[in-house]
Amino acid sequence: MTDLGGNRYLSFLTDYGTLDGFVAICHGQMLRHAPHVRVIDITHEIAPGNVRRGATVLAETLPELPPGGVHVGVVDPGVGTRRRSVAIAAGGHVLVGPDNGLLPWAADALGGAEAVWELTNEDLWRRPVSATFHGRDVYAPVAARIAAGLSPAETGERIPPESLVRLPPPRRSVTAGTALGEVRAVDRFGNCQLSLRGDDMERLVPGGTPATVEAALPCGVRELPVTTTFGAVPEGRPLLFVDSAGYAALAVNGGDAAAVLGLTVGDHVTLRAGGRSRPGPRGV
Amino acid sequence: MTDLGGNRYLSFLTDYGTLDGFVAICHGQMLRHAPHVRVIDITHEIAPGNVRRGATVLAETLPELPPGGVHVGVVDPGVGTRRRSVAIAAGGHVLVGPDNGLLPWAADALGGAEAVWELTNEDLWRRPVSATFHGRDVYAPVAARIAAGLSPAETGERIPPESLVRLPPPRRSVTAGTALGEVRAVDRFGNCQLSLRGDDMERLVPGGTPATVEAALPCGVRELPVTTTFGAVPEGRPLLFVDSAGYAALAVNGGDAAAVLGLTVGDHVTLRAGGRSRPGPRGV
Amino acid sequence: MTDLGGNRYLSFLTDYGTLDGFVAICHGQMLRHAPHVRVIDITHEIAPGNVRRGATVLAETLPELPPGGVHVGVVDPGVGTRRRSVAIAAGGHVLVGPDNGLLPWAADALGGAEAVWELTNEDLWRRPVSATFHGRDVYAPVAARIAAGLSPAETGERIPPESLVRLPPPRRSVTAGTALGEVRAVDRFGNCQLSLRGDDMERLVPGGTPATVEAALPCGVRELPVTTTFGAVPEGRPLLFVDSAGYAALAVNGGDAAAVLGLTVGDHVTLRAGGRSRPGPRGV
Repeated sequence: MTDLGGNRYLSFLTDYGTLDGFVAICHGQMLRHAPHVRVIDITHEIAPGNVRRGATVLAETLPELPPGGVHVGVVDPGVGTRRRSVAIAAGGHVLVGPDNGLLPWAADALGGAEAVWELTNEDLWRRPVSATFHGRDVYAPVAARIAAGLSPAETGERIPPESLVRLPPPRRSVTAGTALGEVRAVDRFGNCQLSLRGDDMERLVPGGTPATVEAALPCGVRELPVTTTFGAVPEGRPLLFVDSAGYAALAVNGGDAAAVLGLTVGDHVTLRAGGRSRPGPRGV
Repeated sequence: MTDLGGNRYLSFLTDYGTLDGFVAICHGQMLRHAPHVRVIDITHEIAPGNVRRGATVLAETLPELPPGGVHVGVVDPGVGTRRRSVAIAAGGHVLVGPDNGLLPWAADALGGAEAVWELTNEDLWRRPVSATFHGRDVYAPVAARIAAGLSPAETGERIPPESLVRLPPPRRSVTAGTALGEVRAVDRFGNCQLSLRGDDMERLVPGGTPATVEAALPCGVRELPVTTTFGAVPEGRPLLFVDSAGYAALAVNGGDAAAVLGLTVGDHVTLRAGGRSRPGPRGV
Repeated sequence: MTDLGGNRYLSFLTDYGTLDGFVAICHGQMLRHAPHVRVIDITHEIAPGNVRRGATVLAETLPELPPGGVHVGVVDPGVGTRRRSVAIAAGGHVLVGPDNGLLPWAADALGGAEAVWELTNEDLWRRPVSATFHGRDVYAPVAARIAAGLSPAETGERIPPESLVRLPPPRRSVTAGTALGEVRAVDRFGNCQLSLRGDDMERLVPGGTPATVEAALPCGVRELPVTTTFGAVPEGRPLLFVDSAGYAALAVNGGDAAAVLGLTVGDHVTLRAGGRSRPGPRGV
């Protein structure tokens, strides 16, 4: 279950930002312990301490990366306190980071945690260990050593996957004709990804696209065409589609749905099967 | 014409931003299909859907990169609609992206498109292909395979270079004593690159620097010294110089010319040969 | 003194930003002259022309990177004027950049400049050399050649380390019971790093943590607990700690100390040994 195969690489996600030397210092640890291993930076722009956002991005990104990844995630407002640090084997990958809910969604997306170790082998850490920068002192060096060939079993004691700290899942409930969800993520384009999956949309709109649904949003009720491309509606008009990660999402063709519809992460959205059979002329 | 030589590498420019996992997901495709190939990220901060800005940055950057590059550009507001996807061979490089005007300026800057293929060989794509993320599904995997040795001729059907979609070129007209141009780009320092080239400046000011030109800007007419360095004028004063890319540009020593002179991309600028022979004491 | 060993790599810090092609163009020079050498980007978000900020980040980052580094720093408001360009050997690393104060603090942090060369060997430069982009034309190609094996002694003429331009050091004065310092850096989380070191704190609070100090800040006098972790105080409360780089720093648990305490780089801070023995209930 911990066989990573021959083509190992590292990925790296943090809330460290790119203004300081923090990310480079961790890259230094990776270079030190895994000099020939490639590193993919996912993002370092997670809002400070926003574990939920970090978990969402990891869960969406890791399944798209090739097998053999050792993935370091550090969004760690509890650094230096008694929260555990863990390595999780899942689907031919290993995830390394704090046990605060950051990693389990991504492990789920990779097929589920097959084995978990608490990082207790301090011989693998940078010395001295600070109380505030475990990305440098614990996670980067441990992950780099795994990427260089170390077995995750060497990183500490085996613990039950069920013991991992988990974030409350986003709201999601689908019944005949109605789907309750929430905004799971807003991307750089303003597209609003919902907690509802493509499967949920198929249940709601069995006929597939084109179709129309009624969306109850914080700004009011809107009738939205369900399409497969942004260009299927006139510029500036909102639409509902299944995004490239398989989630239902709200977008505006050539525009910013979050701004146009006044949506933010966590907002509740209720979708009801609509009456009209094709995208109509009305919109925002 | 498609010989890339032995030292292939990838470059990558998008409007994906760095907040989400989009860029890393494309890097994952590159790692999958070209595990030993270096990737240079140009920028992912092109404003969403701003094809013209993407084309400008590519055209300025690619000629400065070594031969053997396979360059992926994705600014693609028409993703999923009927716009074509293309690979363009030019000057020992290959450019890959949507056929919406993003790539031809860069191909011109590399010596001109020598061959163009429409990306129709779906065997090279990620499966399934989404309607909204062709960076992941088409451009990154196709480009990575080329960087790993695939001939561009395998990517699809040959099409005439003349059939490529082109953006309207920026305004540029030079006559004896007068040059009409526009602001082509504003960089991070506020320097305003014009659509006029160093050659145009030599025609306007045959004696070279030091010289003075009269610039008609949206904020009024200014007399500007023509210099080779920022430090040739006092701090806070504007100047005209030929920038490192060979374009005439407006700058302010130690300051932000776009802010000081109220300039933005697309603004018209008219330069007239001035009367004084050296930088004068007047400025903003 | 110039033996970099077998595992050379490059690092890169600038004020070029990530909106334009400048960074990628320099990466192109690195790829050209050192095609097999890894590059670590430290940051390109130094505020334009802020040499002091660049020097601070370099000094904090480079000692954390493995030996064998060739570090390119470019914050260069005097580009094209008569400032010198230099290569500095220090502690198994080489630093390359303008002689304007950017590099010596980092060289100090690596153990001190052992040898310095002025970059006068123009054969190593890109041709033609522009007056405004020496990152591309001088620093990147020279550094890449060193990373590829060139001796720094080939880059130009040896000059005395004492001749390097130096920035005025930050304010720092420690006497019995009182430490005068200033805010040296504010990081992405709002933590305010002072010019005082962990040693200074030990002198001020010999008993170690928990302790309390009285801090005279621009916003008034505050009594602050001295702790080792953020979580040692209630959320939203300020604290004083020794950060992962060994500096005394002000933080707010789960918050932004710079915002909460109204602090900015350069602000004077005076610490006095306080009376209470453990973190008290008062705070902001």
